[in-house]
Amino acid sequence: MLNISIYGGSGYAGGELLRILLCHPQVTIKQVTSRQFAGRPVSVDHPNMRKVTKLLFIHPDKLEECDMLFVGLPNGTSMDLMPKLMKKAKKIIDLGADFRLHHQGVFEDWYKQKHTQPSLIKKFVYGIAELHRAEIAKRNYVACGGCEATVSILSLYPLVKHRLIENKIIIDAKMSSSQAGLSPTLSSHHPERAGVVRSYMPSGHRHTAEIVQELRSDLDVAISATALDMVRGLLVTIHTIPKKGITEKDLWKAYRAEYADEPFIRIVKEQQGLYRFPEPKILQGTNYCDIGFEMDTRSNRLVVIGAIDNLVKGTAGQAVQAMNLMNGFTETTGLEFAGLHPI
Amino acid sequence: MLNISIYGGSGYAGGELLRILLCHPQVTIKQVTSRQFAGRPVSVDHPNMRKVTKLLFIHPDKLEECDMLFVGLPNGTSMDLMPKLMKKAKKIIDLGADFRLHHQGVFEDWYKQKHTQPSLIKKFVYGIAELHRAEIAKRNYVACGGCEATVSILSLYPLVKHRLIENKIIIDAKMSSSQAGLSPTLSSHHPERAGVVRSYMPSGHRHTAEIVQELRSDLDVAISATALDMVRGLLVTIHTIPKKGITEKDLWKAYRAEYADEPFIRIVKEQQGLYRFPEPKILQGTNYCDIGFEMDTRSNRLVVIGAIDNLVKGTAGQAVQAMNLMNGFTETTGLEFAGLHPI
Amino acid sequence: MLNISIYGGSGYAGGELLRILLCHPQVTIKQVTSRQFAGRPVSVDHPNMRKVTKLLFIHPDKLEECDMLFVGLPNGTSMDLMPKLMKKAKKIIDLGADFRLHHQGVFEDWYKQKHTQPSLIKKFVYGIAELHRAEIAKRNYVACGGCEATVSILSLYPLVKHRLIENKIIIDAKMSSSQAGLSPTLSSHHPERAGVVRSYMPSGHRHTAEIVQELRSDLDVAISATALDMVRGLLVTIHTIPKKGITEKDLWKAYRAEYADEPFIRIVKEQQGLYRFPEPKILQGTNYCDIGFEMDTRSNRLVVIGAIDNLVKGTAGQAVQAMNLMNGFTETTGLEFAGLHPI
Amino acid sequence: MLNISIYGGSGYAGGELLRILLCHPQVTIKQVTSRQFAGRPVSVDHPNMRKVTKLLFIHPDKLEECDMLFVGLPNGTSMDLMPKLMKKAKKIIDLGADFRLHHQGVFEDWYKQKHTQPSLIKKFVYGIAELHRAEIAKRNYVACGGCEATVSILSLYPLVKHRLIENKIIIDAKMSSSQAGLSPTLSSHHPERAGVVRSYMPSGHRHTAEIVQELRSDLDVAISATALDMVRGLLVTIHTIPKKGITEKDLWKAYRAEYADEPFIRIVKEQQGLYRFPEPKILQGTNYCDIGFEMDTRSNRLVVIGAIDNLVKGTAGQAVQAMNLMNGFTETTGLEFAGLHPI
Repeated sequence: MLNISIYGGSGYAGGELLRILLCHPQVTIKQVTSRQFAGRPVSVDHPNMRKVTKLLFIHPDKLEECDMLFVGLPNGTSMDLMPKLMKKAKKIIDLGADFRLHHQGVFEDWYKQKHTQPSLIKKFVYGIAELHRAEIAKRNYVACGGCEATVSILSLYPLVKHRLIENKIIIDAKMSSSQAGLSPTLSSHHPERAGVVRSYMPSGHRHTAEIVQELRSDLDVAISATALDMVRGLLVTIHTIPKKGITEKDLWKAYRAEYADEPFIRIVKEQQGLYRFPEPKILQGTNYCDIGFEMDTRSNRLVVIGAIDNLVKGTAGQAVQAMNLMNGFTETTGLEFAGLHPI
Repeated sequence: MLNISIYGGSGYAGGELLRILLCHPQVTIKQVTSRQFAGRPVSVDHPNMRKVTKLLFIHPDKLEECDMLFVGLPNGTSMDLMPKLMKKAKKIIDLGADFRLHHQGVFEDWYKQKHTQPSLIKKFVYGIAELHRAEIAKRNYVACGGCEATVSILSLYPLVKHRLIENKIIIDAKMSSSQAGLSPTLSSHHPERAGVVRSYMPSGHRHTAEIVQELRSDLDVAISATALDMVRGLLVTIHTIPKKGITEKDLWKAYRAEYADEPFIRIVKEQQGLYRFPEPKILQGTNYCDIGFEMDTRSNRLVVIGAIDNLVKGTAGQAVQAMNLMNGFTETTGLEFAGLHPI
Repeated sequence: MLNISIYGGSGYAGGELLRILLCHPQVTIKQVTSRQFAGRPVSVDHPNMRKVTKLLFIHPDKLEECDMLFVGLPNGTSMDLMPKLMKKAKKIIDLGADFRLHHQGVFEDWYKQKHTQPSLIKKFVYGIAELHRAEIAKRNYVACGGCEATVSILSLYPLVKHRLIENKIIIDAKMSSSQAGLSPTLSSHHPERAGVVRSYMPSGHRHTAEIVQELRSDLDVAISATALDMVRGLLVTIHTIPKKGITEKDLWKAYRAEYADEPFIRIVKEQQGLYRFPEPKILQGTNYCDIGFEMDTRSNRLVVIGAIDNLVKGTAGQAVQAMNLMNGFTETTGLEFAGLHPI
Repeated sequence: MLNISIYGGSGYAGGELLRILLCHPQVTIKQVTSRQFAGRPVSVDHPNMRKVTKLLFIHPDKLEECDMLFVGLPNGTSMDLMPKLMKKAKKIIDLGADFRLHHQGVFEDWYKQKHTQPSLIKKFVYGIAELHRAEIAKRNYVACGGCEATVSILSLYPLVKHRLIENKIIIDAKMSSSQAGLSPTLSSHHPERAGVVRSYMPSGHRHTAEIVQELRSDLDVAISATALDMVRGLLVTIHTIPKKGITEKDLWKAYRAEYADEPFIRIVKEQQGLYRFPEPKILQGTNYCDIGFEMDTRSNRLVVIGAIDNLVKGTAGQAVQAMNLMNGFTETTGLEFAGLHPI
């Protein structure tokens, strides 16, 4: 049994890690930290864990050595702690943004903050298994992708790799409230947040940097993010320009070439039923990334649609998938939940 | 491996059975019938089953023999078929209402319909394991409880058994849209159904009969059902009158006496956190029945609160729990999903 | 033109007053105070007022004299200010709880707080026009009813007055998030608040005191309050026991006797259509109180259903209705909005 | 008083016309037709009209002459009736698609249906007052714009007119359920429709034709439409390419030049508050079109955001605005409702 601990376990990503790992047959959860809630049962803050675990949060200062450590902290806070945490565990998976970007300058440009541990950056591999499976399996440090970046990268990767689209890419992202984390603000206050179709970030989304890094540096990627009345889930409608002569067949070929054997990728482009394209509604709790596409026959446009559960494939599930690879477990272990319908 | 089939598998209960049974390690799904969709993949209508199964619906006429048969048909339609179905499988679990009520007259009174197979009624045991575990394990035919009846019975059972409350019981039930099944009508049309707090049945709910049958025949049970903007989940606020001198301690004692070892019952009555009483929000996909209570210190009233996922503990999960008992499997097998938070 | 000001205008009740009064043909809004937002346009916080008004919030210390003052402050804070405010305006309508209850002891019992201005209590008349129309018209000080109290009182008043029901009354209230006001907390945080059916107050709701005061002191009124995923609106399902021999005809007679000429009361008990009983969904923005009922033919129970928009009939609309009476305006002026469907 | 009738009044557009016109001081509603509901009160199907009107639906065959006729029929059905209807009323406003497109061929290309009255097409003026005010005032026949077209045209018009953007325009439209009308289908069935972010039309939206017609024939307009869990409201996120050297100042100038005096257009681009860009949430029931924009400083992109209530500015409100112009009434009469917050 692998002894794992969660550093920063009171948030939504931490809760989702708990949910998945408590059912994982090859893992034991040793400690879960929370500065604020030290001493109380994790099931107070993660009420779905009632009767599942009697674990208590411990204070971060009491963190002991473990085989593997998951770090779930706000962006910009794990880098300072990383040297210390690296002494507690040989393997670390960071769910935050601090070590995702390979270049210190790019990080500082987008996050408007000095990177305090630039020498550690290169120790981390980016956590999307579908792109970096072999490397993740060999490495000790993984930085999981941002949720919006993850679904965009996975949706576009085969098209970019096979050079089927032009450089200009517009991502219209539909976001849920759990992405903003656990801190109540007026913008998350129910009377203000319910029923919204809120253009909270028409341009300038930080995940742009990850997408360009992972796909190709010469891409012109632009994101507009709109918040919806939804707790979990993320859908991207990606507007791209197909290269001359490209047909639907070419697209199918590229997706199949890259993803035919991927356990968590489904190409969704159906002729019947209601769910003809990817939809976050039926992905809640699953590690799937569903991807679909449609050629616009009247405009020179290819629409690519991707959907994930931001807390699973976009965060905690991606982390567990990486953990499985890093430890030689079957990649899908603990991530078998297929999702609910209707929901 | 137990060979099971589902008769009537295109509805929401059928889909939920599929979801649970496809992950059940001791079961193989042999056939799933659908008159309307025969020949097409079950994953068209249950899109969460994509990549999980390649099963096709078959026409009901092609049903073959199997070890165990689940029947998921509209109320009033399984009774006519039952003699024929009993030749296909030695063990049958019926999810509909036809064989829940032990007395033909009671059924006909509430369902305004002749019971065509009265002689078969006594072959069926009512499917709530917490009340009929031993009998379910011995019998071949189970009629699962209605969802509203199930949560009400489980919430009240210890109080009635230990004679802690008076006979008059008022159940204020908050219902979701999946309970009405798969047929679109104007009342389920999204513009009319979204945002409702609709008193669709202020009195006269049929599940009253089951509750009285399972608890005690001299109870005066009255239900008011209100439909909410919610797909899954059911909460009952039960207004009762405590017997003279009864204290909170007596209530705890009764609940613990009956449910301390129950794997799917949680008493939820917390002093901290947001989820101090049962809530359907965090039960989606789980087989839990969460129960809480509060003594009204200003009025002579005891409020009991119960919550379930109507499609799991209220239907398909209850059925699988019964199946596990009938076949000597561990009772919780296939029903381990702990639910999501936030959702 | 009547010069009115709003003391405490940044909250939801204040915003709703603004919306109604800015369209009122006999009123001019002179000042709107906000300690926190003094100096900025009211339309920043009440974005529906963009292009409708250029008013700025002023600091409370700058309040000038006016003909009439509306006070929209958190419960327990207007009493200390009242002597000072009474010097600013001859007529005052208080939307908070401080002057609703006629007896200091009752207030202190339910609000767990000393009443600092007991001598002023008797100056206030309770603001429900349907019960106190004549008195409101003659008086200078009005305390508007709480939203939950208002809909319960209006639903029950004819039944109590005509002695059609027994003393035991159980109110199952379905509540919305705007009732909790403007302050973000974890319990109003969207990921935690969306999708809830939350028993946040199974017993002990403070509005009980108002209901008993307004209806009859010997009633045993018990409220259970459940929060729903809804921003505006309030529905009560009231479980009562009809007196022996009472028929539906008697109920109709009582409701007609009291409410036949009421402009804002509608008895909703339909045989056709989807909206057969009151529903808050279609009351948003309106000053209606819709009331329906059903006799339970199997249990000795009468179910009464009432619905309002908590911010209009439950707060700001009720206040404007009182203002109209106090100033000799047509009672319905400014309150004509009929509501939206679908919504 | 102008005598108006509504032909096809049981649908959502018809209901909204009723709501607005019943409060319009210069109009009397003479007749409202419904083939299906002839004889029953309009308030059964439009429950917000209870106590507001006692009008009954009449059978279409009983339509009498009137001053002005509103036609609210499914697309493709008004053209056959138009010659007959033109004999009933001198002035007609058609809310459907049949007479919006000036060229028969364009209509037939997009609607896959023969136009049976091509000679009547040129009699109709397109109904957006902001573009065709003078002409609408002079003409007898108006075809109101489609809801998605209306918000897109209004959002883009100043940019196209002032030649500030390139020809390629991508419209990412977020849609609500009321747009699909009154007929229940599986796709509008609450359990399937609630919670969706559904790419129901990634390309090929018919309103493209109207947008090109109204803006400029050489534009390459592409729409992707996503359905949300929302009853009313429509938001478009429009991705455009600014011409070289264009600055925010140029954009402000263009919008002000065209819209400074428009009563129903608001430019929403705020530095403070939560509602910094247009949002359909606060437009419900209003005739506003809110428009905002943001230059993407990292990509060569201008994001334009538009929001309306699809049933008001997108349908019935637009029609009443045209009616006011056609009859010399003040343009805003009957359309003063400012919307609700919070909602």
